[in-house]
Amino acid sequence: MQNNRRPEQRLWRHRCRELCERPIGIFDSGMGGLTVFSAVRKILPGENIIYFGDTARVPYGTKSKKTVTSFSVEIAEHLVRKNIKLLVVACNTASSLALKEIRSRIRVPVIGVIEPGVETALKETKNKKILVIATNSTVSSHAYAQMLKKKSPETEVCEKACPLFVPLVEEGWCGRQATFMVANEYFAGLKKTGFDTIILGCTHYPLLKKVIGKIVGEKVNIIDSARSVAGHVFEALKKNGMFNPGSRGYSKFIVSDAPEKFSGLAWRLLKIRVRDIKIKRF
Amino acid sequence: MQNNRRPEQRLWRHRCRELCERPIGIFDSGMGGLTVFSAVRKILPGENIIYFGDTARVPYGTKSKKTVTSFSVEIAEHLVRKNIKLLVVACNTASSLALKEIRSRIRVPVIGVIEPGVETALKETKNKKILVIATNSTVSSHAYAQMLKKKSPETEVCEKACPLFVPLVEEGWCGRQATFMVANEYFAGLKKTGFDTIILGCTHYPLLKKVIGKIVGEKVNIIDSARSVAGHVFEALKKNGMFNPGSRGYSKFIVSDAPEKFSGLAWRLLKIRVRDIKIKRF
Repeated sequence: MQNNRRPEQRLWRHRCRELCERPIGIFDSGMGGLTVFSAVRKILPGENIIYFGDTARVPYGTKSKKTVTSFSVEIAEHLVRKNIKLLVVACNTASSLALKEIRSRIRVPVIGVIEPGVETALKETKNKKILVIATNSTVSSHAYAQMLKKKSPETEVCEKACPLFVPLVEEGWCGRQATFMVANEYFAGLKKTGFDTIILGCTHYPLLKKVIGKIVGEKVNIIDSARSVAGHVFEALKKNGMFNPGSRGYSKFIVSDAPEKFSGLAWRLLKIRVRDIKIKRF
Repeated sequence: MQNNRRPEQRLWRHRCRELCERPIGIFDSGMGGLTVFSAVRKILPGENIIYFGDTARVPYGTKSKKTVTSFSVEIAEHLVRKNIKLLVVACNTASSLALKEIRSRIRVPVIGVIEPGVETALKETKNKKILVIATNSTVSSHAYAQMLKKKSPETEVCEKACPLFVPLVEEGWCGRQATFMVANEYFAGLKKTGFDTIILGCTHYPLLKKVIGKIVGEKVNIIDSARSVAGHVFEALKKNGMFNPGSRGYSKFIVSDAPEKFSGLAWRLLKIRVRDIKIKRF
């Protein structure tokens, strides 16, 4: 009996190992999702990762639900063909508008950035007054407000679109006087709402944390969901028996346009060296 | 003999009329090209016009030559299927990167915005020192500098990318303090070059003419190529026997995403009422 089981056990172990070694897919409209990539890489050094930046069609934050969903599903299906074991939708706009559709179209677990951000904010807030800043499309979807109200109905939520923050970051103007002035215009009139916590509802915004902090003051919690997302990824991997221990996972990058610009910005803004980079044109 | 020729003449006249009544196609990456649309509509009120805004993939100014060319050719071919008699590439980035390829792929006359802008600037400048401001991709292509040097080799040209101008316009911040500050940062260090003429090398920039004028001073000529482009269209139509006289041409609009946002911006920024609007998804 024991002899008969051994090959099966070996096969089972082999399959488990094969599953664990499959890469995690992370996708974003551009380079902003690299903040999530960094957090996952730090917490889960043994995981293999494929990052996809849709640089040919960036930004998503100004586009309609139909278009964002169509682009997102196309990329999710492309990553599934690359044999990923789990997908992280690092783009807030795609997480807000397309998560349900992506989940219905692919067969691997899918993690968005809304829920992790909301959970962290609810842990940090004391007065239950939360400000969400994001792109136009994310704010219009009310995805953050709905999730906050679902998990904590008594929370007061204020949402504010800050569409100039993404181009300011992409221009590398993270600490310039003009950036302070733009941020000041966005926050004028919001302080009276009395929020004690801000959710940075766009993966580019962590790069403006200092500017925002100076304007809103030290006492306000600024929630960057990247670390929280990495924690969710770890839990999902363990729950599904897919965690890959170790410390030397590979990182591969795919973009839909302009790889040199992508790797240049990754280094300039996040000190990430992007080496193994491929192009997928749609 | 005369009797035999009459049906032929009638057929010939019918064909000429049919040709004249075909629409002009105007395309841009988004809504900026409506400045060109307005100028053409004003100078040529009898012409039928189909305007295409690629709102699903805007902006083009941060993307590579290959991607911009692929998008531009796709749209040009789509407009040819709509039976246009002439194509205006109202987008500066597409005019800089893809004009040759578009001309080789479609059989109707194609007019870009670079040459008309250059001709007007050369007429206006006195000291032959010209500043070109445009998107990153247009500046990297050096299309303006090359055309200026070709037509007037002794001209001194300085090119400056101003990538934040497009999102500032799209946000409707055409006269805000933050916009002055951004413009000031871009123009710092340029005044010493001694230019007496600026070419606005992006269709969004005419909406910032006042801000730019205040920074560079009254004596500097600010060239918005829209009117000059309309003049080129008129000449091309007459040369090819395609001019449509009259005063009541139709205007149709096609966008690849978010028609409400497009018509909202058209009204808010340019006071253009966009009524007949269709969606073409790629």
